[in-house]
Amino acid sequence: MNNCFSSMKRHFAIAAIACSLSSYAYADDGSRLWLNNERAGNAQVTLQVKSSKTTDIIERELSAWKGGAVLLKQVKVKGMKRDAYTIQIKDGKTTISSPSDIGLLYGTYRLLQLQTMNKTSQNMEIKESPFHDYRILNHWDNLDGNSERGYAGKSIFWNVDGFPESLGKNLVGDLKNNPLKNDTYGRACASIGINGAVLNNVNASPKMLTSEVLQMTKEYADALRPYGIRVYLAVNFSSPKVIGGLSTADPMDKDVQLWWKNKAKEIYGLIPDFGGFLVKANSEGQPGPMDYGRTHADGANLLANALRPYGGFVMWRAFINNPTDPDRAKQARLEFEHLDGKFLDNVIIQVKNGPIDFQPREPFNALFGALQQTAEMPEFQITQEYLGQANHLAYLGTMWEEFFGEVNQFANYKENQLKARYNAIAGVANTGTDANWTGHPLAQSNWFAFGRMAWNPDLDAKTIADEWTSLTFPTLNEKQHATVVSMLMRSREAVVDYEMPIGLTHQFGNSHYAPGVWDNRPIRRDWLPVFYNQADENGIGFDRTKATGTDNTSQYAPAFGGVMEDVKTCPDKYLLWFHHVSWNHKCQTGRTVWEELCYRYQNGLNEARQLQRQWNSLEGAIDSEYFHDVQVRLMTQTRDAEWWKDGCVLYFQTLHKMPLPEFLEPPVHTLDECKNNKIHVGLYRSPTHEELNRER
Amino acid sequence: MNNCFSSMKRHFAIAAIACSLSSYAYADDGSRLWLNNERAGNAQVTLQVKSSKTTDIIERELSAWKGGAVLLKQVKVKGMKRDAYTIQIKDGKTTISSPSDIGLLYGTYRLLQLQTMNKTSQNMEIKESPFHDYRILNHWDNLDGNSERGYAGKSIFWNVDGFPESLGKNLVGDLKNNPLKNDTYGRACASIGINGAVLNNVNASPKMLTSEVLQMTKEYADALRPYGIRVYLAVNFSSPKVIGGLSTADPMDKDVQLWWKNKAKEIYGLIPDFGGFLVKANSEGQPGPMDYGRTHADGANLLANALRPYGGFVMWRAFINNPTDPDRAKQARLEFEHLDGKFLDNVIIQVKNGPIDFQPREPFNALFGALQQTAEMPEFQITQEYLGQANHLAYLGTMWEEFFGEVNQFANYKENQLKARYNAIAGVANTGTDANWTGHPLAQSNWFAFGRMAWNPDLDAKTIADEWTSLTFPTLNEKQHATVVSMLMRSREAVVDYEMPIGLTHQFGNSHYAPGVWDNRPIRRDWLPVFYNQADENGIGFDRTKATGTDNTSQYAPAFGGVMEDVKTCPDKYLLWFHHVSWNHKCQTGRTVWEELCYRYQNGLNEARQLQRQWNSLEGAIDSEYFHDVQVRLMTQTRDAEWWKDGCVLYFQTLHKMPLPEFLEPPVHTLDECKNNKIHVGLYRSPTHEELNRER
Repeated sequence: MNNCFSSMKRHFAIAAIACSLSSYAYADDGSRLWLNNERAGNAQVTLQVKSSKTTDIIERELSAWKGGAVLLKQVKVKGMKRDAYTIQIKDGKTTISSPSDIGLLYGTYRLLQLQTMNKTSQNMEIKESPFHDYRILNHWDNLDGNSERGYAGKSIFWNVDGFPESLGKNLVGDLKNNPLKNDTYGRACASIGINGAVLNNVNASPKMLTSEVLQMTKEYADALRPYGIRVYLAVNFSSPKVIGGLSTADPMDKDVQLWWKNKAKEIYGLIPDFGGFLVKANSEGQPGPMDYGRTHADGANLLANALRPYGGFVMWRAFINNPTDPDRAKQARLEFEHLDGKFLDNVIIQVKNGPIDFQPREPFNALFGALQQTAEMPEFQITQEYLGQANHLAYLGTMWEEFFGEVNQFANYKENQLKARYNAIAGVANTGTDANWTGHPLAQSNWFAFGRMAWNPDLDAKTIADEWTSLTFPTLNEKQHATVVSMLMRSREAVVDYEMPIGLTHQFGNSHYAPGVWDNRPIRRDWLPVFYNQADENGIGFDRTKATGTDNTSQYAPAFGGVMEDVKTCPDKYLLWFHHVSWNHKCQTGRTVWEELCYRYQNGLNEARQLQRQWNSLEGAIDSEYFHDVQVRLMTQTRDAEWWKDGCVLYFQTLHKMPLPEFLEPPVHTLDECKNNKIHVGLYRSPTHEELNRER
Repeated sequence: MNNCFSSMKRHFAIAAIACSLSSYAYADDGSRLWLNNERAGNAQVTLQVKSSKTTDIIERELSAWKGGAVLLKQVKVKGMKRDAYTIQIKDGKTTISSPSDIGLLYGTYRLLQLQTMNKTSQNMEIKESPFHDYRILNHWDNLDGNSERGYAGKSIFWNVDGFPESLGKNLVGDLKNNPLKNDTYGRACASIGINGAVLNNVNASPKMLTSEVLQMTKEYADALRPYGIRVYLAVNFSSPKVIGGLSTADPMDKDVQLWWKNKAKEIYGLIPDFGGFLVKANSEGQPGPMDYGRTHADGANLLANALRPYGGFVMWRAFINNPTDPDRAKQARLEFEHLDGKFLDNVIIQVKNGPIDFQPREPFNALFGALQQTAEMPEFQITQEYLGQANHLAYLGTMWEEFFGEVNQFANYKENQLKARYNAIAGVANTGTDANWTGHPLAQSNWFAFGRMAWNPDLDAKTIADEWTSLTFPTLNEKQHATVVSMLMRSREAVVDYEMPIGLTHQFGNSHYAPGVWDNRPIRRDWLPVFYNQADENGIGFDRTKATGTDNTSQYAPAFGGVMEDVKTCPDKYLLWFHHVSWNHKCQTGRTVWEELCYRYQNGLNEARQLQRQWNSLEGAIDSEYFHDVQVRLMTQTRDAEWWKDGCVLYFQTLHKMPLPEFLEPPVHTLDECKNNKIHVGLYRSPTHEELNRER
């Protein structure tokens, strides 16, 4: 095989290219993400690998390498994963080796990151191998160009100007001031090891599987393949009826089975490495196998059978938001545990990290570790549906670190993943057509952190925050760098404090943005804040104990559930999640529940102000456009934190009539104002600063 | 004469009247003011004074006296002022004596106040005599029912439903929920010694002098006379032209002089004790003698001549808001000093306390003490045009104490007043048709403080705040009482801090409510904030020094002007009033000017929050309607303080580009938001909480 390798040296000197591109690092609209767009290196690149589009990318990227000679070689090492790589620097020579060109690409990005972070040395060796084999972004993008829970503009894949004309223009075309955006997506994903993308919303249009859309999907697959990214589609369970002309979508129906088999064949004819399907079935109005008296297993296996010949798999979501048990937190486990063993082995159950719905803080979903014969994969939400959307700073690395800590300790996460046929993880993307990709420029750190943790869940949030900050703001001095990292690290806990402290959950108004703690409209109980807070004149909290409540605690291993069951050992952060307690119940801090709530709301507001202070201290050190964008978002965050604090304490006070603690900053909004506060935005974008000015 | 006295005893037992009236003290819409409406006394009243409507009032009020026998006797004591009184309690018997029935009424109110304040004792003697002989409210009320700079509803004198039908309905009629309002005005004024009322706006309609309006004025005079209140009118200098049919209003014109003489005759035929005229001439578009090439003296003397036969006098305002000198602060003295000696002796020059216009803090007007042969009287503004209007708490007792301190020390105030033919003082009233009279319920304290200080300018603000609080909230315990007093005492300095610290002045937008520190519209320079702050990249402040500025300092006695002239001795509170200094100039606090400004804006905001905290601690101890009214106003105040802080620091920062100090709470509004903040209210009311929500 050796003669198949092309062996060549290409010199990328300090040339005109370098100068024209380097300006991107300074006139900063956020579009360059954490990528190095400088080309001022001196690399002499030697490839001992078959030339490919991927190696072309490697060579282009290495034009930024300033460490001289680089050898890239394909290796075969027993037990070494295809994506793994080794970086060795020795005697002035740098070698990256991997079983695949994609592994070499990963190694290349890492090498350049180490360079930017000043972490290369004369003699070093780094071996990297991903923990999860499938590291997948879920884009909740619709064909009409909207992105559900997308707060950074429109879909980057599908077109705003109507379906089906000019599909994909957003990705391939002329994004304003952003000529790099086309390949930036692939570069960004590959630079952090993301290797899969579900290109559309889990609330999927049946039209996704029309030949027209599949043709476009093929184009994306071709464009992303050199970056090691496989494409997947979310599918609508009723597709055989809606676009196939069948009278049913029953998984036991032969015609339905045939339809899916043929559809798989069509897809793989276009996209040989197509990843598979993601399905949201029988949840929130979506069709599914239960419409025909079948089970989730019947439904998932229908699709898995169709994909199996081509190596594809099905990600079947466990988020079944239909009320059966009085405690929605128990539902995923209740619905899936009894089906263990009934799924084909190319089905993965995709489980949200928490039992409710991407809240600022939840304990892990009790379904993790509950299935012995079925693969599970976590679903994170990178987009901040419930964490201030694109207006608030909330670095989620800390949340995911907390999640991995819990599932490793109490649900054998690593062991289960390693023994499963598919070791996968998904994150709902926060990307959009905004120049900076993520709305809030600092929310890029969440995309980055997802990739890094999907690669290595043992990485701690602080390390990743350090990396992202170094790569994004390489010119900051040590103190300034520490300021950004400190902001990231404290940000999510601030949101927890001002939105939903000590285990409260889902206290939102309809926007999933503003407080709705009082909300008691005549709709499904388990969509209502009052259902989740269970607050009355005597106390607050949702009793999930075995002793007196819904017995959610028994769904967990005793080491976790037992600690949660006992109000004396349950940590404050989950107190109101697992317990209904009196307002005067003493928290572990020594404060009563009422005082602790007030303390936390106040602390969240104080922390929001501290984020502002810290950011303001960076003026001049950060590009001014970027600086001011973040500055105004942080203003919004502080104002929102104040609305949360005022609304929540004033509402709870109407129940128990106790005075406000002395330390609480007195409310500046009446409860009526808080209640009448209409945020007229919903699924597809966050309210703007101007709208919040106007609507409040 | 002794046989003219009616001698009688009337017993007011605990009877039906008492019960029906006492409820007013508890269902508290604020309408009762600081008055005692209980009738549960046991007084046995003996009158040794000629029976009159005034003695009827005395007897009615004494039904609240719980100390047994009361003797009221008219006395003649050489040198004792007509309004003076003595209260003596001895051997279980209480005696009030005075040269007049009005003095007895004053003594009666004081006795009842002492009772409410628990300050009576078995053996005591109190002698009281007013310092100022004329203690006058100026009502800036228009015939159309509006009250200029009135923030408590409509005029209490003139009707909203159109002129001239049903004039005065507001005073005599059916105010909602407030059957006592008719006589409450007289009772309130008499209870604090106010003995005059100018019934209409200084921007006076000529129609005030029509026979129709004079007839109505007579009714007011008759209604208020028993309370010792004389009525006055503000007159329009063009009245002879506009309603008299003359071709001129030239003071040298014989027909004009005759017209005024006849008008005075008509008035005194209706109102024998009519007080006189108040005039705003040649200021802000009002007509005046200068329209005919005459002087202020010519104009004032025209009216003084007409009033002289009847004992009336003219109050001629020194607020000549027409720009002649580059420094408006100098104008009053420049315009009037050279006319000293040219005014008839029944002319008083009415001078605003400060040189500009009722700002949160000004040094005293340099015209005080400057006239040797002409009487002067201070004009205070009880209504809070520039101090948050009816939305903010700003107890003005502290401001007036500061004023009296300065003019006593540096302008021989007391001496000058005592030697003048007329020893008078005026306050622009804050009354309106709101049930609580003053919009902000706690602003009643300013009406009260004006009366008390007009009676005795040596009273300190704290004593008056104590009195008002005791009388208004007699049921508070000691700690609660101290809380209210603390709020009052700190409130005005809080407003100074968040609106215009360290000598800044007139930084308002057009509303005289919201910040307009950046305002540089193409209008009269001396109406613009940028003219008053003189802020640029290097420094801030208005240079009024002799050395380098407008030489306003020389208008003052050296003991004051000299201290102000020297930037090293000028106190921080007047720093930017008298000096233009660099942003890095060190204040007496050790902070730079930029830091000190930020510190003050922040402190003002903190203080506003502290006012909220203090008030909130009174929940349950204060009537709930009253409590919540104030609570919401205090919320508005804090939010406004935040707008002030943000707008001012962000604007100044655009000039000097220095960072915000660490201690400053980061702004939560952008400068553009502050600038675009339209408060759509003007002369006649303050913005409501709801409007502020909407408009910002």
